[in-house]
Amino acid sequence: MPELLILNGPNLNLLGTRQPEVYGHQTLADVESLCAQTAKAHGFSVVCKQSNSEGGLVDALHAARGTQVGVAFNAGAYTHTSVALRDAISAIELPVVEIHMSNVHAREDFRHHSYMAPVCLGQISGFGADSYRLAVEALIRHIKGS
Amino acid sequence: MPELLILNGPNLNLLGTRQPEVYGHQTLADVESLCAQTAKAHGFSVVCKQSNSEGGLVDALHAARGTQVGVAFNAGAYTHTSVALRDAISAIELPVVEIHMSNVHAREDFRHHSYMAPVCLGQISGFGADSYRLAVEALIRHIKGS
Amino acid sequence: MPELLILNGPNLNLLGTRQPEVYGHQTLADVESLCAQTAKAHGFSVVCKQSNSEGGLVDALHAARGTQVGVAFNAGAYTHTSVALRDAISAIELPVVEIHMSNVHAREDFRHHSYMAPVCLGQISGFGADSYRLAVEALIRHIKGS
Amino acid sequence: MPELLILNGPNLNLLGTRQPEVYGHQTLADVESLCAQTAKAHGFSVVCKQSNSEGGLVDALHAARGTQVGVAFNAGAYTHTSVALRDAISAIELPVVEIHMSNVHAREDFRHHSYMAPVCLGQISGFGADSYRLAVEALIRHIKGS
Amino acid sequence: MPELLILNGPNLNLLGTRQPEVYGHQTLADVESLCAQTAKAHGFSVVCKQSNSEGGLVDALHAARGTQVGVAFNAGAYTHTSVALRDAISAIELPVVEIHMSNVHAREDFRHHSYMAPVCLGQISGFGADSYRLAVEALIRHIKGS
Amino acid sequence: MPELLILNGPNLNLLGTRQPEVYGHQTLADVESLCAQTAKAHGFSVVCKQSNSEGGLVDALHAARGTQVGVAFNAGAYTHTSVALRDAISAIELPVVEIHMSNVHAREDFRHHSYMAPVCLGQISGFGADSYRLAVEALIRHIKGS
Amino acid sequence: MPELLILNGPNLNLLGTRQPEVYGHQTLADVESLCAQTAKAHGFSVVCKQSNSEGGLVDALHAARGTQVGVAFNAGAYTHTSVALRDAISAIELPVVEIHMSNVHAREDFRHHSYMAPVCLGQISGFGADSYRLAVEALIRHIKGS
Amino acid sequence: MPELLILNGPNLNLLGTRQPEVYGHQTLADVESLCAQTAKAHGFSVVCKQSNSEGGLVDALHAARGTQVGVAFNAGAYTHTSVALRDAISAIELPVVEIHMSNVHAREDFRHHSYMAPVCLGQISGFGADSYRLAVEALIRHIKGS
Amino acid sequence: MPELLILNGPNLNLLGTRQPEVYGHQTLADVESLCAQTAKAHGFSVVCKQSNSEGGLVDALHAARGTQVGVAFNAGAYTHTSVALRDAISAIELPVVEIHMSNVHAREDFRHHSYMAPVCLGQISGFGADSYRLAVEALIRHIKGS
Amino acid sequence: MPELLILNGPNLNLLGTRQPEVYGHQTLADVESLCAQTAKAHGFSVVCKQSNSEGGLVDALHAARGTQVGVAFNAGAYTHTSVALRDAISAIELPVVEIHMSNVHAREDFRHHSYMAPVCLGQISGFGADSYRLAVEALIRHIKGS
Amino acid sequence: MPELLILNGPNLNLLGTRQPEVYGHQTLADVESLCAQTAKAHGFSVVCKQSNSEGGLVDALHAARGTQVGVAFNAGAYTHTSVALRDAISAIELPVVEIHMSNVHAREDFRHHSYMAPVCLGQISGFGADSYRLAVEALIRHIKGS
Amino acid sequence: MPELLILNGPNLNLLGTRQPEVYGHQTLADVESLCAQTAKAHGFSVVCKQSNSEGGLVDALHAARGTQVGVAFNAGAYTHTSVALRDAISAIELPVVEIHMSNVHAREDFRHHSYMAPVCLGQISGFGADSYRLAVEALIRHIKGS
Repeated sequence: MPELLILNGPNLNLLGTRQPEVYGHQTLADVESLCAQTAKAHGFSVVCKQSNSEGGLVDALHAARGTQVGVAFNAGAYTHTSVALRDAISAIELPVVEIHMSNVHAREDFRHHSYMAPVCLGQISGFGADSYRLAVEALIRHIKGS
Repeated sequence: MPELLILNGPNLNLLGTRQPEVYGHQTLADVESLCAQTAKAHGFSVVCKQSNSEGGLVDALHAARGTQVGVAFNAGAYTHTSVALRDAISAIELPVVEIHMSNVHAREDFRHHSYMAPVCLGQISGFGADSYRLAVEALIRHIKGS
Repeated sequence: MPELLILNGPNLNLLGTRQPEVYGHQTLADVESLCAQTAKAHGFSVVCKQSNSEGGLVDALHAARGTQVGVAFNAGAYTHTSVALRDAISAIELPVVEIHMSNVHAREDFRHHSYMAPVCLGQISGFGADSYRLAVEALIRHIKGS
Repeated sequence: MPELLILNGPNLNLLGTRQPEVYGHQTLADVESLCAQTAKAHGFSVVCKQSNSEGGLVDALHAARGTQVGVAFNAGAYTHTSVALRDAISAIELPVVEIHMSNVHAREDFRHHSYMAPVCLGQISGFGADSYRLAVEALIRHIKGS
Repeated sequence: MPELLILNGPNLNLLGTRQPEVYGHQTLADVESLCAQTAKAHGFSVVCKQSNSEGGLVDALHAARGTQVGVAFNAGAYTHTSVALRDAISAIELPVVEIHMSNVHAREDFRHHSYMAPVCLGQISGFGADSYRLAVEALIRHIKGS
Repeated sequence: MPELLILNGPNLNLLGTRQPEVYGHQTLADVESLCAQTAKAHGFSVVCKQSNSEGGLVDALHAARGTQVGVAFNAGAYTHTSVALRDAISAIELPVVEIHMSNVHAREDFRHHSYMAPVCLGQISGFGADSYRLAVEALIRHIKGS
Repeated sequence: MPELLILNGPNLNLLGTRQPEVYGHQTLADVESLCAQTAKAHGFSVVCKQSNSEGGLVDALHAARGTQVGVAFNAGAYTHTSVALRDAISAIELPVVEIHMSNVHAREDFRHHSYMAPVCLGQISGFGADSYRLAVEALIRHIKGS
Repeated sequence: MPELLILNGPNLNLLGTRQPEVYGHQTLADVESLCAQTAKAHGFSVVCKQSNSEGGLVDALHAARGTQVGVAFNAGAYTHTSVALRDAISAIELPVVEIHMSNVHAREDFRHHSYMAPVCLGQISGFGADSYRLAVEALIRHIKGS
Repeated sequence: MPELLILNGPNLNLLGTRQPEVYGHQTLADVESLCAQTAKAHGFSVVCKQSNSEGGLVDALHAARGTQVGVAFNAGAYTHTSVALRDAISAIELPVVEIHMSNVHAREDFRHHSYMAPVCLGQISGFGADSYRLAVEALIRHIKGS
Repeated sequence: MPELLILNGPNLNLLGTRQPEVYGHQTLADVESLCAQTAKAHGFSVVCKQSNSEGGLVDALHAARGTQVGVAFNAGAYTHTSVALRDAISAIELPVVEIHMSNVHAREDFRHHSYMAPVCLGQISGFGADSYRLAVEALIRHIKGS
Repeated sequence: MPELLILNGPNLNLLGTRQPEVYGHQTLADVESLCAQTAKAHGFSVVCKQSNSEGGLVDALHAARGTQVGVAFNAGAYTHTSVALRDAISAIELPVVEIHMSNVHAREDFRHHSYMAPVCLGQISGFGADSYRLAVEALIRHIKGS
Repeated sequence: MPELLILNGPNLNLLGTRQPEVYGHQTLADVESLCAQTAKAHGFSVVCKQSNSEGGLVDALHAARGTQVGVAFNAGAYTHTSVALRDAISAIELPVVEIHMSNVHAREDFRHHSYMAPVCLGQISGFGADSYRLAVEALIRHIKGS
């Protein structure tokens, strides 16, 4: 069964307890479970990782080479500041979907720019936990179609 | 049966015949058909409109008030230049999902900014025709959940 | 009886029903009626037009040449994006007063710039429907005085 | 009889003698008299002050609290450079109308930005001495209406 | 006989009557006639269209596919603001020459940037009505040579 | 007993009555009294001045030379616009601590820049009236330590 | 006894040995000891952490939830580049005071901007080791007062 | 027989041998010959100069005063960096047409700005060697018409 | 005997005692005396004023109308921030020479811009007290020559 | 035998397998071996470290104090985003040479800026694996010469 | 007799014949003669050079080392674009006075910046030919005084 | 024996006598001799040229075509201002290494940008005269390897 990496960045371990008016009431475990169910329905499995460290996320992307077939990635704050993650995405040559739970374009100006976006397959933002489900579906359809 | 507006902006009437390496080989009719099927599977119908005119798109959004329950909107080039469409979206108080077939962040700088994004529910970009299917699903789940 | 053009741009057809906390409860018909009464008290008549289309507004300005003696113009969102309207105002060589119901300077940054302002006679913003009354009075006193 | 403050900033004491092609031939006394007549017609009186000093204008605004019911304010050059006047306007919690005799948008770029605009009720610019009359009328109608 | 599209944008219907010190005394009909004569001398015919609407110009470009062999296009004010026209030019895959009667670089800063320029064959600006003649000649020589 | 200057800029005379949600309920007299008590506890006295005039504040700084041994200075709005105060601080060669009651970095962009900051000893912002107490303590410990 | 977190970022482990002309001769242990003494005098204890890793500092902030009642935080270089720390501060909903030993405004331009500042309680910079003592006092008085 | 100056700037001596995919296969001699033939057909002669030196080009322009009646000028890279050439063009008071063989707007950003453009009669770019022919024709028709 | 105004702005009263490495050891009285001697040698007298207040300097310029025939003006820090002084210089229609003792272009970036420069006759900077002597000479020769 | 630190940042562990058209076919081990040989030929030894973590690289630099005599450092993506590494380089007071394998100036704009460059001894970029050899030689000659 | 270099840059050979409304009617020979007379009156001689070439001006500055004791330099257009001249001025370690005949601050924006200014002794602009006389006087008094 | 061009730009003829604290004590002859020795050790000869003229350097690059096999180029100040040199480097299709003796990134901002860098093979900066030796070695290894 082909495997996807569900990768979450800084502060997402606090999901459900942090600013619920922005990020909703579901925990990271809830979101990861939603991803697993969505993938399973299409014959895929998932492995889930979270790190607050930019280097830890780079390591996780590297580890996906030869192991997983695609990545659903919410890089959180590093979306806006990390060239290292952009380079890691380019390096591993796997399809990566950029996820945001909130509508980043409706927030501070510095959240409107993404270093990763040009090297990802696509972006999904603004749908809360459902952003993850959509990303997993988009990724799987892309993998099946390519 | 609740109805969605599938709204397409300038040059999207040429889909399938214009720069297929960027936009793919499916025609606008194909994409609209995909939206209809996706919606129908969730108990929704769609009405599809396309216009090359900024004013025509404003009119279409106004007409959706009291008629449709949500909008899946690919504003094409007007995404980056139209304050009028932003104001129309704010005015009609319906959930609107911003769609792009291409990954706009991997193209020219002026395509990285969206006037509409802050007043939309969310954005989906980069998945070709599948961006529409994802948008319809996101919209319907949002409408059912709210 | 000399005639003024009262010209309204995109989304102003929704006046009274759209974001009343920003634009108030008066409809476009109410505002146009207020303009007519104000003009009449000074011996002027008005003709009122509204369009959501940039090209439609250009056409309306062109038509004013040789017909009306001045224009009270709320260009709405096109204020901030349209060079075509600026050129049309320059071309018709009639006094044009720029109107805004809201205080545009207290809103988003992109609403602080007006392409039309340098070629208009003057600007009135922030007084709700009363902005129109003031504009008609300013225009008539200017026409009588010049 | 409720009282308005008519407040004029730097160089406006030279009105009528300074660059008449920009500012017209009426003196400051003429303009203040026009304000007084306009106000009187609506049952209001005016007190008129002018200062070339930023601090003097801050003082005048402070003094208006509890004395006047609104302010018609041509801050002249300080419009573009003074955060202190912006803060004073916020602090006194009276309606303030920003006045310019010339069309500031048709002049140098640095005159296009106003620090005061976002905390004023509205702006009137470009109508010469008539800008004052319009401002007094707008202010009085606002006060009566609120 | 191969056919060219001579396409004119907003306010160019007023040619000859609008700011003659900038745009000269020839009418749009004069300019179109000059294009027809120039083309005929090289064995080409022309069809001439003008629209004040951005969407109308997009439509005209789309209609040229399969009908005309090249476009001489004065987009007027939309040159500086329209991504939709840029995309239409890319989409139709015909050679397009950008025309300006005035020297746009000697005017306001916002007229120095052209969204269309990078996707056109070339630009001709500053020669009044003669800009059209030069554009038609350039276009025909390009078509014959390619 | 060594003396400190407690210097307050524009609008701070309204403390306690102006926007208490931003600046709190203590008056300028309360704040000055707090400074006096804090200084006295360390064997220092204070002299307190306030002016709404940029020039008045420059004068006050000049007068401190040879009289006071340090300055606790809330320049209010002039923080962001005054080069003259920066130059005065450099000129008098006394330690000056920059004070803000509100967290200026959480407010408008133009409040994030301080002309004075590079020539002050240090900055304290965001603690309401307590910002003054901290500044007096910091100043005294610096004077004693140097 | 309520506990504060004293958190130090990159390179602060070298305090006392690194560029003493900028940062002084006190070691990190000296500074932490000063914090402990200051806190103790007000009935508070401290726990001290230092990390050169952005992710490590995010972890430390997360760990403070439910354990400490406030944070005195010198984020060093990450002040100017880390959105992740800003988000962590927002997420934990504890009062955080931003500390700098040097006057950052007198150094390179890129040190004038702080991503954290808008979500902190306040800032103290420029007083060397005394910045920490002031921060602890400010934090404790805020906690007691709120 | 009236004479034109055909002036070419840096690196144009390499024409035909340098990046033919950008500049084509014709040599500078070919281009100069094309200019001579075009001019001759209208009763004009040409003198051709080329220099890699900014100062040499200034000298050539100065020498044209009183000798030639117009200049067709491809300033190459100096177009984007030379104020001296702009001043020379202004000084000699002859009509100058700016030429580019490539479409400079489709290349790097720094090639989009021309210091010379505002003081030239007009610009022609993007037509390869044909840009020269068009420039000579435009210049001659301008000279005959004025 | 025709009279010149020697006008000095903020902090210049401290000349000779403030940062002598930048401004030299001569006092304001020394500089004014140098101006008087220079003027007298050409048959002119001087009146000298200094103010730390922007408004005070505006007043001094106004007072020069009808009294003095020219102004030698070192506006100090207000050079870089005051639109009010620019407007006052325009209003009085006297020749004004801008003076700086230091080479402002070798100092901070914000000292490179002068609001007054475009409306002054000319500028002299960098020669210490000699800047004043040169300004008086330039002014007198201009007055005699015009 | 004096020792150098060869330090590599994020994604360089993938050398030889990542985008070989940009970075070549040599692995990190190959590059480190090349450094060792080069150093040995001059009587130096090397220790090699690689980390994907910004904090890990800061730690490695700190550890070099008192152990190594110089650093050859390819910071990869952190070159463009890390102030922490800049500060670490300043803090350790060892000569550091900045290395890039690719010509960073021929890539995206954000790779043209280096936070580290001003505090390094020098930079070498664009020579693939040979950049490392050159850096080691430059470093050793600098150490021997100083 | 000590010697000064009077150095003139591009287009100044046309003085008196070029745009006399900007630069006056005196020729370069007139200006050089004025410099010679002014210098002679103070016991100095002058040597005068002019070049339209940036490199030629660099050469002239180099030649002044060991020969002349100071330079009065009108670099014309190169003022705004030449780093090479700035470096030459730094290199020769002679006092250089920057001259402009026109008030450059009242002209186009790109003339407001001078690369040379920070490394010159001072600047004199706006006084036509008299700018040269003032520069020679300033230079001689500086040389005598130092 | 294959030949390299060692090309030096403006002011480098003064090496050893100009600002030795920045550029060291070696003369241009010393540096050229170092290049010759380095090349000879690898079986290459060198030809050395220096010019203060941008056009002269363009000429020297053109002359290298068909004569030399690579260029070691210190363009000095023209690095930051010359598009003509960039185009010349592109045109000649030889490997060019950009050299700087000083660490340009530690100097003024305008020295951080290089027009040539994107079209060079690589850059070496900051190692004084040793930058040349490294460049020659890098160039020769590149030529041998390609």
